[in-house]
Amino acid sequence: MSLLECDLIIYGSSVITQDENRSIINDGAIAVTGNKISDVGPKSEINRKWTASKTLDSGKSILMPGMINSHTHVPMTLMRGVADDLPLLTWLHDYIFPIEAGLNKELVELGAHLGCAEMIAGGTTAFLDGYMHEDAVGKAVDESGIKAVLGEGFFEFPSPFFKTAEQAWEVMEGLHERFSKHDRISISITPHAVFTTNPDQLVESMELAEKLDVPWQIHCAESIPETELTLKKFGKRPLEVLRDNGLLTARTRIHHCVDVTEQEISLLSSSGTMVSHNPQSNLKLGSGICPLTKLLDAGITVGLGTDGAASNNDLNMFEEMRTAALLQKGILQDPTAIPAQTALDLATVNSADFLGLTDTGSIKPGMKADIIAINMNKMHLKPVYNPLSHVVYCVGAQDVSLTICDGKVLYHDGKHFTVDIETVSHEAEKAVKWALSRLKNH
Amino acid sequence: MSLLECDLIIYGSSVITQDENRSIINDGAIAVTGNKISDVGPKSEINRKWTASKTLDSGKSILMPGMINSHTHVPMTLMRGVADDLPLLTWLHDYIFPIEAGLNKELVELGAHLGCAEMIAGGTTAFLDGYMHEDAVGKAVDESGIKAVLGEGFFEFPSPFFKTAEQAWEVMEGLHERFSKHDRISISITPHAVFTTNPDQLVESMELAEKLDVPWQIHCAESIPETELTLKKFGKRPLEVLRDNGLLTARTRIHHCVDVTEQEISLLSSSGTMVSHNPQSNLKLGSGICPLTKLLDAGITVGLGTDGAASNNDLNMFEEMRTAALLQKGILQDPTAIPAQTALDLATVNSADFLGLTDTGSIKPGMKADIIAINMNKMHLKPVYNPLSHVVYCVGAQDVSLTICDGKVLYHDGKHFTVDIETVSHEAEKAVKWALSRLKNH
Repeated sequence: MSLLECDLIIYGSSVITQDENRSIINDGAIAVTGNKISDVGPKSEINRKWTASKTLDSGKSILMPGMINSHTHVPMTLMRGVADDLPLLTWLHDYIFPIEAGLNKELVELGAHLGCAEMIAGGTTAFLDGYMHEDAVGKAVDESGIKAVLGEGFFEFPSPFFKTAEQAWEVMEGLHERFSKHDRISISITPHAVFTTNPDQLVESMELAEKLDVPWQIHCAESIPETELTLKKFGKRPLEVLRDNGLLTARTRIHHCVDVTEQEISLLSSSGTMVSHNPQSNLKLGSGICPLTKLLDAGITVGLGTDGAASNNDLNMFEEMRTAALLQKGILQDPTAIPAQTALDLATVNSADFLGLTDTGSIKPGMKADIIAINMNKMHLKPVYNPLSHVVYCVGAQDVSLTICDGKVLYHDGKHFTVDIETVSHEAEKAVKWALSRLKNH
Repeated sequence: MSLLECDLIIYGSSVITQDENRSIINDGAIAVTGNKISDVGPKSEINRKWTASKTLDSGKSILMPGMINSHTHVPMTLMRGVADDLPLLTWLHDYIFPIEAGLNKELVELGAHLGCAEMIAGGTTAFLDGYMHEDAVGKAVDESGIKAVLGEGFFEFPSPFFKTAEQAWEVMEGLHERFSKHDRISISITPHAVFTTNPDQLVESMELAEKLDVPWQIHCAESIPETELTLKKFGKRPLEVLRDNGLLTARTRIHHCVDVTEQEISLLSSSGTMVSHNPQSNLKLGSGICPLTKLLDAGITVGLGTDGAASNNDLNMFEEMRTAALLQKGILQDPTAIPAQTALDLATVNSADFLGLTDTGSIKPGMKADIIAINMNKMHLKPVYNPLSHVVYCVGAQDVSLTICDGKVLYHDGKHFTVDIETVSHEAEKAVKWALSRLKNH
């Protein structure tokens, strides 16, 4: 019998597939052709069926789908640690806003390169972004080989980037035009929040999302102060404003959902609205704790995100997954809450749905080859009883030894193949002086 | 002017000293002679004063005191991930107890070697242990070069290790005898908990602690179910039992303190009792959340610990520090709660007090040379605005590039110098089969 030909076979001690049955294959292998997975199964079976020009024998590694970050502002890596432990408004008005007001395309692109490199090294293969100058983010994403859904943020007031709200429309259409044929990049419509926009603008932006057939994402119900601001401005809670304007739909993506009522949870569920959970950012900014277990019990699709590196302070999806699981157990005083499988689902299959991507998040024939390997030969990972719970409760981003996105090896054994990390590091350190020069107290 | 001679000079881009002024020295250096720190200051100043036979130029690294883990059961690394996401009693009775019942000295020593290696690689230089066969833990500690305060645990009922409680006394005195002259090892008296011992035993054990002049440590107020069990057995809450038996003193070390009243917090404070905070274990077991901010506001010395690897599932003090800070901010909806400096204090100077060690936890002349370096040349650590907040909010255990304990280099650039990690890894993987064979459902 002649063997089938593929481009690459990867071997692992376990393959966590995240397929419909949540199969875990011991001594497994994955066959990749072009940018797609051709086959996955026990090593012996794959070797009987396939031959490849290249093999990667990761030996004792766990193979799994690349993680998918459902909410970040990737250029904010340049502001990692610029201000911590401060009241929210001080953090925003005295640090983040003054720096952001001076950002240009070059700096946004630099921050995006830095964040893409961090995510690639940490086993993340796709993310949903929201920021300014997203064409520059798209350029970094294109070059780094990762996947992204870009979102050009807008407000009702003039921003450093748009003199008028109308200008935002042109930019978004341009962004869609530029990237609509790209293999790894798509866009979403991205109003900032209910209290920083107005309902007419929100409705109009949803019409644009429908026209372009892309997701519509918004920060919403992130904290009690946000609810209070929105009540003051509109006499309604943030999710009520969305509901009353017909903006809770299967196209809607809500980031945070910390301050939500039972009734609002029902609304999210019945409308097919999806939620991104960002536990570390919610904790660090003092926003509170999202009722994740209730959202999942209501049947809502919840993805997992890091938020930006200025409020996290990293883009580490393993820590985010662990925090999501531990936090619910502690809050509910129930060690069975958010078991390892659920936590991993948040970061893979659910986040893929959140990004609107149907061909990533699991390892199955026909899916895109977005695959990572975990090097288990570390003292903090010994011994191994259960690869699944290990990935959630022990593995760190730095245990990732291999990151493949769209069939291409982007990172292997500490080496980046698409990002010039020396230059990016050097330029990022130079940006510190620039950022500090924009702060009053420096 | 002739230079003073020392054994080793270490250079770093920053030295986080944790001295009384919490000084951070840019472009700093530390001079080490024997097992002690001789000097610390700006590089230029140290170079003018000192000459050394060996230098370690860690370049862009942050130097800081080794972390101190105030609560663990180090041999439980062998049970890392054996059972997760289960109700507490199922976890204990169906998994942990059956495995522990079969442990012998060789397995305890193996688990201790594994845990010591993990802690050394992750920047921890001292820990307070509580387990069985602590002489075997002491052997691993002696060989690995780390520091420990050993605690032979005991109950009122016969355990796999003591046919009678009296036997425990002999073992503890023997342990003290064996290690009382050791440079890096001391002991503590370690009753398991109020509900698993009886007051007479507790009082007698405190007398032994006084006689030997060592700390007296106990799990206490870990969860509401523990309080309920104690109320049922004694008609009092756990801390009330200790109070009524004169067991809240400056010698007393309490692990957890999750379920405590305001009145109990006052009691802890006025008695000089110290507390170990273990946020990840408390979350993972569904025990709840320790009111850390209230304890600190009351003036209680609170150290930081990981608890055992069966309920964490690692011995990673960086993650523990981050969790301690983030959790309080989120619970209190206050981003200023537990700022970075406080979080680092928990893991260094406070934990040193908790262990009863007066010569570690900070980098000052005369202190023991327990020093670690953080390799900042990683994409997830770029750029650097503030070394202190970086250590708390970004740095991971795997960013540690150098661990020096008692003046000896134990770990450098991924290499262990005291632990045979190949053998330990191999034996630990072999122990999995043994452990699973002890479980009914396997």
